[in-house]
Amino acid sequence: MHEDTRLIPPDRYVARLSACREALVERGFAALLVGVGPDLRYLTGFVGEPMERLMLLVVPREGQISFVVPRLETEKARTTPPVAGGHAEVVPFDETDDAAAIVAGLLNRAGAGAPIGLSDRLWAMHVLQLQAVLPGRRFEPASVALRDLRQVKDADEARLLRLAAGAADRTVDAITAGRLVGRTEAEVGREIRGRLIAEGHDLADFAIVGSGPNGASPHHDAGDRVICAGEPVVIDIGGTLAGYLSDTTRTVWVAGEAGIDPKPEFRRVFELVREAQAQATAAVAPGVPCEQIDAVARRVIAAGGYGDQFNHRVGHGIGLEVHEDPYMVAGNATPLQPGMAFSVEPGIYLPGQWGVRLENVVLCGPGGPEVLNRSSLDLRAVRG
Amino acid sequence: MHEDTRLIPPDRYVARLSACREALVERGFAALLVGVGPDLRYLTGFVGEPMERLMLLVVPREGQISFVVPRLETEKARTTPPVAGGHAEVVPFDETDDAAAIVAGLLNRAGAGAPIGLSDRLWAMHVLQLQAVLPGRRFEPASVALRDLRQVKDADEARLLRLAAGAADRTVDAITAGRLVGRTEAEVGREIRGRLIAEGHDLADFAIVGSGPNGASPHHDAGDRVICAGEPVVIDIGGTLAGYLSDTTRTVWVAGEAGIDPKPEFRRVFELVREAQAQATAAVAPGVPCEQIDAVARRVIAAGGYGDQFNHRVGHGIGLEVHEDPYMVAGNATPLQPGMAFSVEPGIYLPGQWGVRLENVVLCGPGGPEVLNRSSLDLRAVRG
Repeated sequence: MHEDTRLIPPDRYVARLSACREALVERGFAALLVGVGPDLRYLTGFVGEPMERLMLLVVPREGQISFVVPRLETEKARTTPPVAGGHAEVVPFDETDDAAAIVAGLLNRAGAGAPIGLSDRLWAMHVLQLQAVLPGRRFEPASVALRDLRQVKDADEARLLRLAAGAADRTVDAITAGRLVGRTEAEVGREIRGRLIAEGHDLADFAIVGSGPNGASPHHDAGDRVICAGEPVVIDIGGTLAGYLSDTTRTVWVAGEAGIDPKPEFRRVFELVREAQAQATAAVAPGVPCEQIDAVARRVIAAGGYGDQFNHRVGHGIGLEVHEDPYMVAGNATPLQPGMAFSVEPGIYLPGQWGVRLENVVLCGPGGPEVLNRSSLDLRAVRG
Repeated sequence: MHEDTRLIPPDRYVARLSACREALVERGFAALLVGVGPDLRYLTGFVGEPMERLMLLVVPREGQISFVVPRLETEKARTTPPVAGGHAEVVPFDETDDAAAIVAGLLNRAGAGAPIGLSDRLWAMHVLQLQAVLPGRRFEPASVALRDLRQVKDADEARLLRLAAGAADRTVDAITAGRLVGRTEAEVGREIRGRLIAEGHDLADFAIVGSGPNGASPHHDAGDRVICAGEPVVIDIGGTLAGYLSDTTRTVWVAGEAGIDPKPEFRRVFELVREAQAQATAAVAPGVPCEQIDAVARRVIAAGGYGDQFNHRVGHGIGLEVHEDPYMVAGNATPLQPGMAFSVEPGIYLPGQWGVRLENVVLCGPGGPEVLNRSSLDLRAVRG
């Protein structure tokens, strides 16, 4: 894939930073402090992992935006579009400097009574350092201001989510066309991770392989259990492509070479989950409250008699994070808007026996759902 | 590789949890709150990624240890050795419960005047939730209590660090035996990530490929620049094996098919970095202050006239995190102990031209250094 198809145009970051400042003023923040992670990538394009060295974009309600970075990150920070375009200045510090104190010094210019917003994923060690050097200041989640920006994807973000979804679909199809019987979950998990990369992801983030009873634990990883004929396997995988995540789940039946048929209860549960997934997806439209998508799936499953075995929300937003706003969960009355992307993933889990989950990423379009995952939702019988 | 060679014995976690409790009492904490991440993996064996759903191991100074988890993580939490062995109880919560309030309820049993310790990587969104439901309580970094435990590796941890180092060494050797000229840094980076996994890592964490002038930015990733003959490339790579990190750097000279020789300044700088790396490594011994390792390398490089171009500490601890205590940096007087593992990685960076860095992971042994990376430190000329 040519790198250009993965690009977010540089001026987009400048526009986002400008919208961020409007949002923080509107929400009454004195400033936002944004650490390395998805919020920072969204605002500046900076790609990195959070580390013990403090690194913060300091966005006050007015005046200079500063990017406080360890000296060895200076060059990388300088190449981000907001810095390159003169919209933010780099403030480097040395190994033995007190970076939190430098940030506090920059903030003393900003409105004293108002709260300071912290990006959701900033590490506690840094939160505690900042609170120590800024006594008496109030701190609140920056997501209060950033959520409205990040949860509505623009056309470039939607394109990257489609590319990631396609790469995940091809991985699922390849795995379920291959052999499962006699392999450990971990072996299959390693193959999945390799294929996620080969299909175009930069990172292989997760590869849940829950065979037989392990499928009843929704966040089971991939362990030493050997997959057998005559049981289902929950395969829930995702990777990162140009920052954007894929996340899809298929539950397959391992028929083996003997072609063992699934028991009636498994078929019934599979069809119930499939129906819940279909109805919840069909309910997606602008203006529909997020909690309604959850309720639709839950009603189908409860009517089938498995309400207690569907023990998680039906979905989560997805973008630069695998889980982000908006959440499809009881209590979230946020109305869907065109550009919101999220998973629809009902499941039924029978402890000690098996589980079924089916998951697609869905983009809310102007007239209804666009399903980004295209691989079949039919029950697949894997012969090998 | 057989999975057994990757195992930390289950009873080790129980012993660590017991030592953790002694340490928190000694340091005067009321309790430690440990989120998903390396601290939690160290104490319980729980493997996972931090998420928006709060998940905390609550270790009060006395009484029941609780593992507060979203209901869908219950089965996974139950299989951790401390829970399976009856040393901690699982406290599951549902999607619409207030998890922070549940934690606050558990903590009301614990000593009121003393601070509550938060694991270093706990997300700000969770810190702010906990502070809101526990008004008036003081919060401090849990690492004050956990550092002394985690920074000294036991024999099993040392074994895993050796395995990870070997896998990284084989990756470096394969990459530098292959072709570099005409490929982009990103292409080489993708090959490195694939090989890190193929050689035994579970995750390919990073693959810095800094060609020519990009080598002067220590944390440059791997970009679209095409590697040319007649320039050096800094290759800094690492992955995770059974939770433990590798991290090694080699700077190679790309001679190309024409066999272009490096200029005298590059040779001089390379030898200076190599000498600094060798002297700093040789200085490793129990009782030597961490800052001394940094000072030894810095003295060599300053004497060679490049002191200002060595703009970072000489090393960081490594284990379940790629950067962790102890840091080899000015101001850290912590005496080395047998079992401490850390990088020794001096570098010289000439902005706009190139950089040189050489990095090994070193384990402090009872009588001196054990160098975990075995690949050659000689200047390699890559012909292709």
